[in-house]
Amino acid sequence: MENYLNRYQEIRRTTESICEPLEIEDYVSQPIEDVSPPKWHLAHTTWFFETFLLKEFATHYKEFHPKYAYLFNSYYVSAGERMLRPNRGNMTRPTVEDIYKYRKYVDDAVFELLGGFISDEMKEILEIGFNHEQQHQELLFYDIKYILGHNPLFPVYDKGFEEYFPEDFKHDWIQINKGNYKIGFDGKGFSFDNEHNKHEVHLEGAKISNKLITNAEYAEFIEDKGYDNHEFWHSDARSWLDESQIKAPLYWHKIDNQWHYYTLAGLRPINEAAPLMHISFYEAYAFAEWKGMRLPTEFEWETASNLFDWGKRWEHTASAYLPYPGYKKPAGAIGEYNGKFMVNQMVLRGASRATSKNHSRKTYRNFFHPHLQWHFSGIRLAKDL
Amino acid sequence: MENYLNRYQEIRRTTESICEPLEIEDYVSQPIEDVSPPKWHLAHTTWFFETFLLKEFATHYKEFHPKYAYLFNSYYVSAGERMLRPNRGNMTRPTVEDIYKYRKYVDDAVFELLGGFISDEMKEILEIGFNHEQQHQELLFYDIKYILGHNPLFPVYDKGFEEYFPEDFKHDWIQINKGNYKIGFDGKGFSFDNEHNKHEVHLEGAKISNKLITNAEYAEFIEDKGYDNHEFWHSDARSWLDESQIKAPLYWHKIDNQWHYYTLAGLRPINEAAPLMHISFYEAYAFAEWKGMRLPTEFEWETASNLFDWGKRWEHTASAYLPYPGYKKPAGAIGEYNGKFMVNQMVLRGASRATSKNHSRKTYRNFFHPHLQWHFSGIRLAKDL
Amino acid sequence: MENYLNRYQEIRRTTESICEPLEIEDYVSQPIEDVSPPKWHLAHTTWFFETFLLKEFATHYKEFHPKYAYLFNSYYVSAGERMLRPNRGNMTRPTVEDIYKYRKYVDDAVFELLGGFISDEMKEILEIGFNHEQQHQELLFYDIKYILGHNPLFPVYDKGFEEYFPEDFKHDWIQINKGNYKIGFDGKGFSFDNEHNKHEVHLEGAKISNKLITNAEYAEFIEDKGYDNHEFWHSDARSWLDESQIKAPLYWHKIDNQWHYYTLAGLRPINEAAPLMHISFYEAYAFAEWKGMRLPTEFEWETASNLFDWGKRWEHTASAYLPYPGYKKPAGAIGEYNGKFMVNQMVLRGASRATSKNHSRKTYRNFFHPHLQWHFSGIRLAKDL
Amino acid sequence: MENYLNRYQEIRRTTESICEPLEIEDYVSQPIEDVSPPKWHLAHTTWFFETFLLKEFATHYKEFHPKYAYLFNSYYVSAGERMLRPNRGNMTRPTVEDIYKYRKYVDDAVFELLGGFISDEMKEILEIGFNHEQQHQELLFYDIKYILGHNPLFPVYDKGFEEYFPEDFKHDWIQINKGNYKIGFDGKGFSFDNEHNKHEVHLEGAKISNKLITNAEYAEFIEDKGYDNHEFWHSDARSWLDESQIKAPLYWHKIDNQWHYYTLAGLRPINEAAPLMHISFYEAYAFAEWKGMRLPTEFEWETASNLFDWGKRWEHTASAYLPYPGYKKPAGAIGEYNGKFMVNQMVLRGASRATSKNHSRKTYRNFFHPHLQWHFSGIRLAKDL
Repeated sequence: MENYLNRYQEIRRTTESICEPLEIEDYVSQPIEDVSPPKWHLAHTTWFFETFLLKEFATHYKEFHPKYAYLFNSYYVSAGERMLRPNRGNMTRPTVEDIYKYRKYVDDAVFELLGGFISDEMKEILEIGFNHEQQHQELLFYDIKYILGHNPLFPVYDKGFEEYFPEDFKHDWIQINKGNYKIGFDGKGFSFDNEHNKHEVHLEGAKISNKLITNAEYAEFIEDKGYDNHEFWHSDARSWLDESQIKAPLYWHKIDNQWHYYTLAGLRPINEAAPLMHISFYEAYAFAEWKGMRLPTEFEWETASNLFDWGKRWEHTASAYLPYPGYKKPAGAIGEYNGKFMVNQMVLRGASRATSKNHSRKTYRNFFHPHLQWHFSGIRLAKDL
Repeated sequence: MENYLNRYQEIRRTTESICEPLEIEDYVSQPIEDVSPPKWHLAHTTWFFETFLLKEFATHYKEFHPKYAYLFNSYYVSAGERMLRPNRGNMTRPTVEDIYKYRKYVDDAVFELLGGFISDEMKEILEIGFNHEQQHQELLFYDIKYILGHNPLFPVYDKGFEEYFPEDFKHDWIQINKGNYKIGFDGKGFSFDNEHNKHEVHLEGAKISNKLITNAEYAEFIEDKGYDNHEFWHSDARSWLDESQIKAPLYWHKIDNQWHYYTLAGLRPINEAAPLMHISFYEAYAFAEWKGMRLPTEFEWETASNLFDWGKRWEHTASAYLPYPGYKKPAGAIGEYNGKFMVNQMVLRGASRATSKNHSRKTYRNFFHPHLQWHFSGIRLAKDL
Repeated sequence: MENYLNRYQEIRRTTESICEPLEIEDYVSQPIEDVSPPKWHLAHTTWFFETFLLKEFATHYKEFHPKYAYLFNSYYVSAGERMLRPNRGNMTRPTVEDIYKYRKYVDDAVFELLGGFISDEMKEILEIGFNHEQQHQELLFYDIKYILGHNPLFPVYDKGFEEYFPEDFKHDWIQINKGNYKIGFDGKGFSFDNEHNKHEVHLEGAKISNKLITNAEYAEFIEDKGYDNHEFWHSDARSWLDESQIKAPLYWHKIDNQWHYYTLAGLRPINEAAPLMHISFYEAYAFAEWKGMRLPTEFEWETASNLFDWGKRWEHTASAYLPYPGYKKPAGAIGEYNGKFMVNQMVLRGASRATSKNHSRKTYRNFFHPHLQWHFSGIRLAKDL
Repeated sequence: MENYLNRYQEIRRTTESICEPLEIEDYVSQPIEDVSPPKWHLAHTTWFFETFLLKEFATHYKEFHPKYAYLFNSYYVSAGERMLRPNRGNMTRPTVEDIYKYRKYVDDAVFELLGGFISDEMKEILEIGFNHEQQHQELLFYDIKYILGHNPLFPVYDKGFEEYFPEDFKHDWIQINKGNYKIGFDGKGFSFDNEHNKHEVHLEGAKISNKLITNAEYAEFIEDKGYDNHEFWHSDARSWLDESQIKAPLYWHKIDNQWHYYTLAGLRPINEAAPLMHISFYEAYAFAEWKGMRLPTEFEWETASNLFDWGKRWEHTASAYLPYPGYKKPAGAIGEYNGKFMVNQMVLRGASRATSKNHSRKTYRNFFHPHLQWHFSGIRLAKDL
């Protein structure tokens, strides 16, 4: 925990290693607003350390380029003017090489800074910077998959990259008894503001599955015209289906009457026994309705999480992303991190194949708008007692 | 409670009396998708009784017109094909007179039916039909206000219609202690499925204001550039502000440097002491942030509601509209009533000047998308202990 | 020509008689931006006389209502601020009755004014006002048909209103020889600025059909998959087909495998022998391509027009709407009448069932954007020598 | 003219040399639908020779990649299914290197083919292919400029690339007398179908300026609030101005109260004496109105073109892009080249700094939608006699 220099190096190296299989062209594109160009991620995470660490604490630090703050600020409105998000994919300059130079320049300055005294304030920024970059590591996987997976050539990112692992144990239901439970983080180590305060929640009791829904089960839902039967879907979900003409999980293609999906290891027939991935909250909800069950709340999930295996893909919950009691957003630009997203989004719990190991904690609250499919998301069902 | 015939007559008459001040032209327009033409409300509530009561239980009932089911079904997808919502305002026929004939025809058939034996199934439909029509009575006020209030002539609906009543008592904070509380309906009389099951909720404790925010207080927020200061707003709210260019509550106009608002009694200077109305959830949240406080959750609101005065306008809460534990949606078309809206919307509690008296119960859950302003909505603040 | 008072009365009466079969509700709706509510036409033509005649020449004239200028100005930007066009259908007030009062008020003032000396300037305004109102008479037919024809009840406007007259004479080709011809207006009586200057045009020679394309011929084009065969269509037309999903003329419906169309006399099977109506320029062009022919230019049309029968529907030409040599737009607001539309539109020649008789002249240039279908438009083919 | 192999080599080399200053990242982006990624141009021009020459005439030719036809077909609908245009910028693969390999592969096959007998059919395809690639050479300049010129870093493409040359001769008016003139191509060498047939046109006579409008003159128009004065603009142009918020030519920036523009040699103060560039037809028309003059028609331009200096930028004309008398589009996919664009576009005459020298002929008809600014376009005024 304490060796900041090593951790800094390790995290920065990891980000770059994720991009290693890319061609320069792959770094540039922003096919939809939600997907950022990989080179943007590389630069933005660097900008974060430059802005909040070096400019604040490194005496005599000279910024790498006067316009990079404008180019690579994302949503930290307090930290100054920024380029509008949909334009990221149009910025062919700075080049990938320039951005790697930028990373090197900032890394060198951070190394020097971390060689000296590290104040508590600096530690706080470092922790957030580490976790921030790790979150972007995960987004890099999503965005790279989106960019390559929407190319008619279906390029392979890494032949050995396995996304789908069957859960080969017996299905069972885990019981949560009616009662009050503690929810939220108060352990040691880093946590995000949205995991606080630790507080009490009353649960009426439920059963939660020890296994995730498989590709075969979801294919059955499709087969049964699940996408066409309005009664399973939210009203907003129907509008989304009408507009998007979506009829299957993202990356699924029916070829010669057999479902295939694009994975980072290439296009291949679906693994029927493996847990489903790339469905939106809307689809997860509709599937549960079709089954006559429901999604667990994030509180049920957290409460029971010690009793089932999780961590290979994010799991949709029935909970809207809202502040916990006593939630306070930090002052300043850092305070924009989580609070401003607490409307119109749903919570996912768990972790994915692409998540940094130290983010795998049962109190971690991930969140996305309910129509998005490009994250590594799956379904675990629950039912009332 | 039991005299269904009298209740039916009274409710149907009330709907028509709301429309009495209208000119025929006012019945036709649908200025935005959310606002339905008044004649549509008159017909749709009639279609409800025709479809779910008469066609099911009145032997030999002959429908009034073969195409009305298509024209006046709203979102009951199970009940058959329906006209797309945005086209309602283009349907100049049937005329208002035709629709009043339709109402008369259906009323006559219902009178006859209610003269005979009323089964439990029929009672259930009648209760829903009554409450359904009363909800549309409230929507009629919203929609009529929108139609007239967006006309440059600012027509008066009813000179005596008072929307704004100052709360002339002392401000105080009501304390809710940490503990478990019962939430939801289990009394006698009608309630909606979304108020069930009655269940236990743990609250961490809070203070909730005994008064609503006034127009003067909100004008101060505007004056203080509250709309421009990004830190008070959700990320989605900022996109909404950018697109809509909204800078004040709906119906507010600055004339000769003085805030005015359109009311159903006409355009007039704002009453500074009266509670604020016509702000979206986004604005309510931003105002609370500006004050350094927050909105109450719907559970806090319900728990403390016996201790403050409410019922003259809906109050924004910090709660997303989600099912209660054990929620079951009824089978069939009636089951579409509430459940399918349980995503992307926020709960409002209380009642408004336009709400039927029998809807004024502390467990009633109203809900709207967070950007909407046209309902009679206000702000009550809360804060942590 | 000279009795202005009689002409004024007759024209104003005609406008109102067109609206006579309408229900009040029909006056209000604006189903698409191009279609104005009938009550708007009634008021706008009145505003024209109030603004350009009464306010200029009637001493002591007091305007009927201070906000009507804002409400009923259309595109005369010079004449002051105006309501945005898409909002016309949301203005339920002033009522139809108010607008008839407005007409009466202005008519009375005009009668008084025309009882005195009529200056040349006044005469000029009167002529434009007459022709302007007559153009709106034609638009009233289009807009009323659109409003009623998009209603699932297909209301009848006038049982005796015949739109389709077969041309029962032999088909032939009229030859235009290579040579220079005079184009444009220089006769007596009223003409629009866009018909000037009379000028010489060289034509290479062509043959032009003496008959219009019939419904049967167009049905054959549809049958032959004409809408799906990209090679007949402009590139912009294909985008329009993709977006609009148009597959037939406006108002055509296939019912029990038989083409029907809505006419102002109601829904009925198409008259196969009658000339086609309600196709856009894009469709007219594609049809001609399918036939291996082309549309005539407006110059060919005008040159040959004495030799064929025309006047029952507007005829698409191959000419873009551009100024004639020496074209000068008049000074002031009146100058906005035609010139500003001279881009992106195509010329139609002839006249329709709905055109005022005195507009039926061979030099009259009508114009619409190439995707519009709601005017009474047909196809006459031409081919090279 | 006859040495096809040399010409092929020269043209293909030129295309590549235009891309030489680019970074790999610059090849990928499609900032707006009209701007294609440079790598797309490189591949599409190659696909043209592969599809229409090699696949037709080279026995045993094996296509380079089975999916490239889908990826790099543009609007030749007859030539098969194609990727939708707005997706070009999302295709990060094939890489730039792959595309250069594709060029090499096709070039080698073409070399081999051209070593043998060259039939007349082949010659026709070769001519079109050469001219097609040269048109894309010009588009490459436009698109590269757009991509770099919208980057906040304003990268330099080529320090020595001069776009603006003052015309340092005396201003004068060239008179065109009333009379009949021959228009269109019938010389030797290549010409496009849209330049045919050569035909006679009658002109009423005009004066046409021997000089182009300068940046200083246009700056004066801006200064005089030309963009705000509705009377200079077409109705469609005003909608365009409202939506786009355009207030100056493309690439113009006011920095420290001085107009600058981005050029391919970098950002610099405008050269006041140099001819204006990067204005749309709408702006050219409005400027002419402001001056009390007009744009020349394409016929006036062609007629007088021997008497003035032209060729450094395209010149807006008052003519809509329409077929000449007797126009026939060629059969097959090649026939889609020009005809389908003959609606909603305006003709430009001349040539630009980016035009292949052999395209500089007085009969060449260039065409764009009237709102586009990204081509190298300027203004020459005309007036009536």
